[in-house]
Amino acid sequence: MEEVFSMKNIIIIGGGAAGMSAASRIRKLLPDSSIKVFEESSYVSYAPCGVPYYVEDTVKDINQLVTYTPEFFTRERNIDVHIRTRVTSVDAGASEVSFVSEAGEGSAKYDYLVLSTGAVPFVPVKKWLDSDNVYTVRHLEDGNRIKANLSRASRVAVVGGGYIGVEMAEALSRQGKLVTVLEMKRIMPNLDQEISSTISSYMKAKGITVKEGFEVKSVENLPNAVMISDGRTTERFDAVVLALGVRPNIELARQMGLRIGETGAVWVDEHLMTSNKEAFAAGDSVEVKDVVLGKKRYVPLAPEANKEGYVAGSNLSGMSMVFPGSAGAAITKFYDMEIGSVGINEEEAKANGIDYYAVKIKHNARASYFPPSESIEMKVIFDKKRKVPLGAQLVGSEIFGRLSTLSLAVSYGIDAEKLFFSGIPYAPPFAPVWDSVIVASRIFNEHVL
Amino acid sequence: MEEVFSMKNIIIIGGGAAGMSAASRIRKLLPDSSIKVFEESSYVSYAPCGVPYYVEDTVKDINQLVTYTPEFFTRERNIDVHIRTRVTSVDAGASEVSFVSEAGEGSAKYDYLVLSTGAVPFVPVKKWLDSDNVYTVRHLEDGNRIKANLSRASRVAVVGGGYIGVEMAEALSRQGKLVTVLEMKRIMPNLDQEISSTISSYMKAKGITVKEGFEVKSVENLPNAVMISDGRTTERFDAVVLALGVRPNIELARQMGLRIGETGAVWVDEHLMTSNKEAFAAGDSVEVKDVVLGKKRYVPLAPEANKEGYVAGSNLSGMSMVFPGSAGAAITKFYDMEIGSVGINEEEAKANGIDYYAVKIKHNARASYFPPSESIEMKVIFDKKRKVPLGAQLVGSEIFGRLSTLSLAVSYGIDAEKLFFSGIPYAPPFAPVWDSVIVASRIFNEHVL
Repeated sequence: MEEVFSMKNIIIIGGGAAGMSAASRIRKLLPDSSIKVFEESSYVSYAPCGVPYYVEDTVKDINQLVTYTPEFFTRERNIDVHIRTRVTSVDAGASEVSFVSEAGEGSAKYDYLVLSTGAVPFVPVKKWLDSDNVYTVRHLEDGNRIKANLSRASRVAVVGGGYIGVEMAEALSRQGKLVTVLEMKRIMPNLDQEISSTISSYMKAKGITVKEGFEVKSVENLPNAVMISDGRTTERFDAVVLALGVRPNIELARQMGLRIGETGAVWVDEHLMTSNKEAFAAGDSVEVKDVVLGKKRYVPLAPEANKEGYVAGSNLSGMSMVFPGSAGAAITKFYDMEIGSVGINEEEAKANGIDYYAVKIKHNARASYFPPSESIEMKVIFDKKRKVPLGAQLVGSEIFGRLSTLSLAVSYGIDAEKLFFSGIPYAPPFAPVWDSVIVASRIFNEHVL
Repeated sequence: MEEVFSMKNIIIIGGGAAGMSAASRIRKLLPDSSIKVFEESSYVSYAPCGVPYYVEDTVKDINQLVTYTPEFFTRERNIDVHIRTRVTSVDAGASEVSFVSEAGEGSAKYDYLVLSTGAVPFVPVKKWLDSDNVYTVRHLEDGNRIKANLSRASRVAVVGGGYIGVEMAEALSRQGKLVTVLEMKRIMPNLDQEISSTISSYMKAKGITVKEGFEVKSVENLPNAVMISDGRTTERFDAVVLALGVRPNIELARQMGLRIGETGAVWVDEHLMTSNKEAFAAGDSVEVKDVVLGKKRYVPLAPEANKEGYVAGSNLSGMSMVFPGSAGAAITKFYDMEIGSVGINEEEAKANGIDYYAVKIKHNARASYFPPSESIEMKVIFDKKRKVPLGAQLVGSEIFGRLSTLSLAVSYGIDAEKLFFSGIPYAPPFAPVWDSVIVASRIFNEHVL
């Protein structure tokens, strides 16, 4: 029985973080299984999050963004990787996958499937992409294209002011471009207004033109320019980067008849099994539990994708492992301003009818006398009844440790009193003796007493 | 009743972190009380942890190490601060304190007392201090003395290789001194051997002479030199810094007849009340609960002192607040090598008969392709039965956030599976997608399955 199980045929559709994490886990747990990975692009196990840093030239070679090559997986882990191979359909009844590659069409049977088809950049109107001067930022190929063509552009628009938009604004600015960010709502729209304002002010100070409340209605291609209009004014750019977020790639899931969740991503149970018990799914194509609000949430983040792949691979291999969900911790930087958040913001707390208290502080990043003098702007949303942090937003210097600590507290409901007494390590070069996390907790505790 | 209570006379002995934290808390909760602080030195609310950074000249002015002046407390918080005033005895029966200052002797009655007498540097033989060239590192005055006299020294010995010893070795080395560290056990003796070795190797690479297993038997003063011997060999130095740790200053507590705890520090209950219910105690003179082992532990750290002062002040003022204890999180650096720990090490796990598993990894501090390429050496001790981390030791770059996160997990028993799924925020400049904390947890989880 175990023997038979361990010799199963596994097919993994999509060789990104989730897919290769699942493949490696299955190989470890089922040494005798056959594992095939079909990947549409030329890369597997790549880090799309690194693309902005390749564009800005901090990362010199695009191949550095590839953790392992297809050959590595084949040679070292006996995983049969097929790049530039697109799965065209899945016959769930026959447990068979059809694919097409340079070599032609083919098909393969499976006992278990891992759907890790990832996400696609959101582009409201497909024909916006009908230009050599309009880019999305998703695949390593995008990075290559942007970098190859960048020299001919001087004025560049970044459409979308979220994580990728902010990162691309820095990257392009560092490359000497005149950058305009066009954002429908506000810079970093997942952060509350006042935190967003801190960031947009800094972006402006660094020479970025920031237009908030700007909804792109049309993108028109001219021979050597791209015209962008919000319906009232039209601006001319040499190149345009679309950073409007991503949507789950659910084409095959739909075609297979898998259940699609409330967020529009593939529904999975807590074991990451889809509505078809031969198919697991992981990564940017699935929705997971929001550990703060308890409902489903679409969290297309790399750490989540990697762990989902690990969990899906574990369960597929006969273990029982629950993916507990995500609080959506994320971090980035714009030049030397670090930006991060976890859980919900004040807008979401209000929208969900939560009895909350928001603590806002600006605090030293280290002992006041220890140079450089840098600070952290922190906003923490506490649940007044349960006295736990529900979310945090941080902007400034040295935010990683505070965000990581708050993320753990948000994820597991560590209350503000415990957080107050938590052992944030102290030494003058690292933190003030009353660290920002401690101070924020103290303010909340004193407020609700 | 409330009225009468709020008009109590409070005396605080010792104006360091714990004492001034208590004073400020009491002023807030009991606006009409009379608060007197007696402080032996010339400073209150000072940061002794900053002294090494003053010696190395990162901090230019010793006054920067003073958070608030006595005048500030008197003017802004109506706290009656008496510096250069030594309390000579406490008559617990009469609830009266006797003191001596430049102005002569005096006495004052109290309704409640806060004993925050701090700690004294451990010096095995008092006469070792009978030299202008032998220093301890505790008070701001020590910093002044070292810096004033440093120019005449070339060869300097630092006796003791713990936190302060390592910091002073860097400070003196940065000032161009030839530094020898003499340590009875090993560098950073609270860390396990292999972690200690990483640190001592780096110290040697930076030009420090490190002698481990060196027990100082005698310190002899010559007119312009200090001779140190371990009984076999004798070495000559121009100056000697004694960094042998601290001992609780329990003189007054003993004289008052207060209960002294198993560690030799002042015993307090969880409300930080001493065995005399008119007297609270806080800071480096008390022992607190070790949250990992459950027994009492002496933890003379600044964040603990500050919070203890806050808790003692709260309870003295009629609130009921429990000080939960400490996991002893601490951090420092030697040049660009960061060093930190929390909870117990492997030696302590063994000595306490704990069924543990130690995970040791060396991991990237950020995405492998993101410069600078730096790493973290991490050792985590997990309890095999309860599956929680009991302690962690970290050496390398960017350890603060990982240590802070692990500290929270150690303090509140967050198990390795939860830690694996914790939302360590990810972006290439900050962390690898599989962060060291996640990897260490995964290794433990896979081991105990």
